[in-house]
This record gives sequence, C-alpha cells and structure tokens, in this order.
Amino acid sequence: MPDLIDQMKWRYACKKFTGEVIPEEKIARIIEAARLTPSSMGLQPYCLLLIEDKETISKLLPVAYNQSQLINCSHLIVLCAKSEVDSEYIDTYIKQVASDRDVSIESLEAYRQSILRTLSYKSGTDIPCWITNQVYLLLGAMIVACAVEEVDSCPMEGFNSFQLDEVLGLNKKGLKSIVLLPVGVRDVDNDPFCKVVKVRKLQSEFCIQKL
Amino acid sequence: MPDLIDQMKWRYACKKFTGEVIPEEKIARIIEAARLTPSSMGLQPYCLLLIEDKETISKLLPVAYNQSQLINCSHLIVLCAKSEVDSEYIDTYIKQVASDRDVSIESLEAYRQSILRTLSYKSGTDIPCWITNQVYLLLGAMIVACAVEEVDSCPMEGFNSFQLDEVLGLNKKGLKSIVLLPVGVRDVDNDPFCKVVKVRKLQSEFCIQKL
Repeated sequence: MPDLIDQMKWRYACKKFTGEVIPEEKIARIIEAARLTPSSMGLQPYCLLLIEDKETISKLLPVAYNQSQLINCSHLIVLCAKSEVDSEYIDTYIKQVASDRDVSIESLEAYRQSILRTLSYKSGTDIPCWITNQVYLLLGAMIVACAVEEVDSCPMEGFNSFQLDEVLGLNKKGLKSIVLLPVGVRDVDNDPFCKVVKVRKLQSEFCIQKL
Repeated sequence: MPDLIDQMKWRYACKKFTGEVIPEEKIARIIEAARLTPSSMGLQPYCLLLIEDKETISKLLPVAYNQSQLINCSHLIVLCAKSEVDSEYIDTYIKQVASDRDVSIESLEAYRQSILRTLSYKSGTDIPCWITNQVYLLLGAMIVACAVEEVDSCPMEGFNSFQLDEVLGLNKKGLKSIVLLPVGVRDVDNDPFCKVVKVRKLQSEFCIQKL
C-alpha cells in the first residue's frame, strides 16, 4: 500500500472520468472499509447504494444538474441516511450485538437503555442532524479509502436530494440521500482540475498547538 | 504501509491508553492527512486543537464525564468548527486560491459569487449543520488516517461542548468544539474492548446493489 500522505496529495475532486470500469475487487475493498467505519454508538444509521447501471446513472444526471462527474464514472455511490432511528432499529442492533458477541440480550439491557437515553436527549431536529453527521463521517472515511486504493472519486453535495430520492424510490425504503460519491478513473487529458494546485490552510492555521 | 482492510479491522474505539507518547512524526502525518482532506467548496470551515499538556487534558476530564480515554492518551485532538463563515472568510479563501494558483483575484469572481450563492440558499440553522458536517467528514478521514498509521484513537461525542469551549476559551477565537479524538497506544491488558468482536451490519444490509 502506498504512503498515506502521497495518496492524499494524489487525490482530488475528479470532474471528468474516462469511463474505464474499476475492478469489482477494488470497489469491494472500498465498500468493506466503509462498512468497518465506526459510527456513533455503533448504530450505523445509514447505508450505501452502489449503482453501476449506466441507464440509472444517466437518469440521475439532471437531478445532479448535469455535472460532468456522473457522465463517465465507473460506479456511483449514494450515501443514504436512515429516515428514522426508532426503538425497533435499536432492538435489532442489540440483537445483532448479542449474536455477534455471543452474549445474552439481557446482559446488554444497560447498554440499550443508554442508547435510548442518549437519543432522548436530542430534540426532534437534532436527530436528523446527528444521523447526517454519521453519513459525513462515513464519507470522510471513504474518501481516504479511495485515495489509499488509488481510485478517483468526487464527493458531491450539489444535487437535488428530494428528486433523487423520488427517482430511486428511497422514501419507501426509509432512506434519504445525503451525498454522492462517483468513482472511476480520472481523464488526465480532459480534466483541467487534475493539474491544479491543491489549496489548503497553512499548518499553522489548521492546527493550533498553543492556546 | 499495511493493508487498508486489515487496519480497519485492527482499529477500535480505544477506552484505555497506556500513557505512551506517540512520536511527533506520526502525529504530524495524521494532522497532515487531515489538512489535505477535502471540504465543501474547499472552505475548510474548521481547525484542530492539538493538546499534549497533561494539565490541560486533566482539566477537561470532568467536561468529558471522566471518561477513561482522556486519562492516559498521548494527545487530545479537539475538532472545532468555525462559529461563522462570513463573506470576509470567503474573501480570505479566494485570496489564498489566487496566491496558491498564481491567478488574479478578478479571475475568481464567478467562483466567489457561486460560493456566496450556495451559502445564501442555506437557512440560518442549515449553516451550522453544514459546517458540522464538514467536521465529521474530517473526523472520518482522521479515523482512517490513524488506523493506517497504526495509532489508536477514540472518537468521542460524549462531552459538554459548552463547558469545553469555556475552559479552552474557544468562543473568543470564533471556534466551537464538535468532537474529540484522543490518540495513543491501547492498553491491551486493561481495555477489555480491544478483544471484543466488532459489530457491523452485514454487507448485504450495508450496501444495496439492486434497487
């Protein structure tokens, strides 16, 4: 595996892909890294849609304001939030913990109560915000995973999520699209952005060591 | 650099550190990976506080409900949001883009306007949410960076951010603490969590391929 910093410098928000298909094995590694990413209280209040079908992707093009990243990407990954995290969802999670760790559900009762308590402290509008935060944490992890695996990607907030949810029928599944991550191979000859200098805060502004 | 998936399996939310100090060079690599992490429109509406001083960390212990992760960590990283992203902040960013890319400020006017327009579409409560999302994206990237660099960490949402901001005087600096990331070396003998099975959704639940 190549050096982390080199890979973070190599990556950029790719605006034009070549259309080349990323091998399934690479995609599987990025998805697996995402699956292993931690989340608040372990609840993973999200899931991924992995879209390879060109017809579906082209249907989504107008929803993403015809941005060029969607045209020749290899796969489009839609990061979705669960519309709701209710006590049923938490019970399912507790059952899985019990099964995976080979302990009784009863032994996890205090843990279950602490999750319910933590969520009850959050107001009605705080819960969707907290879920969205977890999706962004996942996005951050996936961006680094793509960089490390030498797969180009472009995180995209600029799309109409209501329309996208409608086109893909996400509401019926209790999901809500939050952010898009097309992946593929950069088109070096036609994407001017791949040669542009990366602009970042200076170390001294980004990281404060003395208060 | 070791395998990404192996490292994601190796990592866990460390609850007890040994007190061993992580070499400066390793910390610098994690901070550099964080600095290189992308953000919405490139604005990086955040910064890190890197705290090594034991006295400061122990002052923060009650603010984080005396959780054991803070007691023997090597460094405590506080991920902070900018309290505000105003037109002055955007102008400073545009100046930096012009300087780093050696182009005129005038040539970036359309870009500046598009940033202002995007932010103007967001309501008063949406802006802090959008900033917080960027901090979580950064957190996700840093969690993977720590894993890849074989540094233990523990993302922590459970602390009183108002009190922490007061203790560290963050308000005066136009900052707001969002999440904590103590880093260090896992105490294999005293942290039962390091041997516990990681609970994650099944691949089939986590990643939907057919709609």
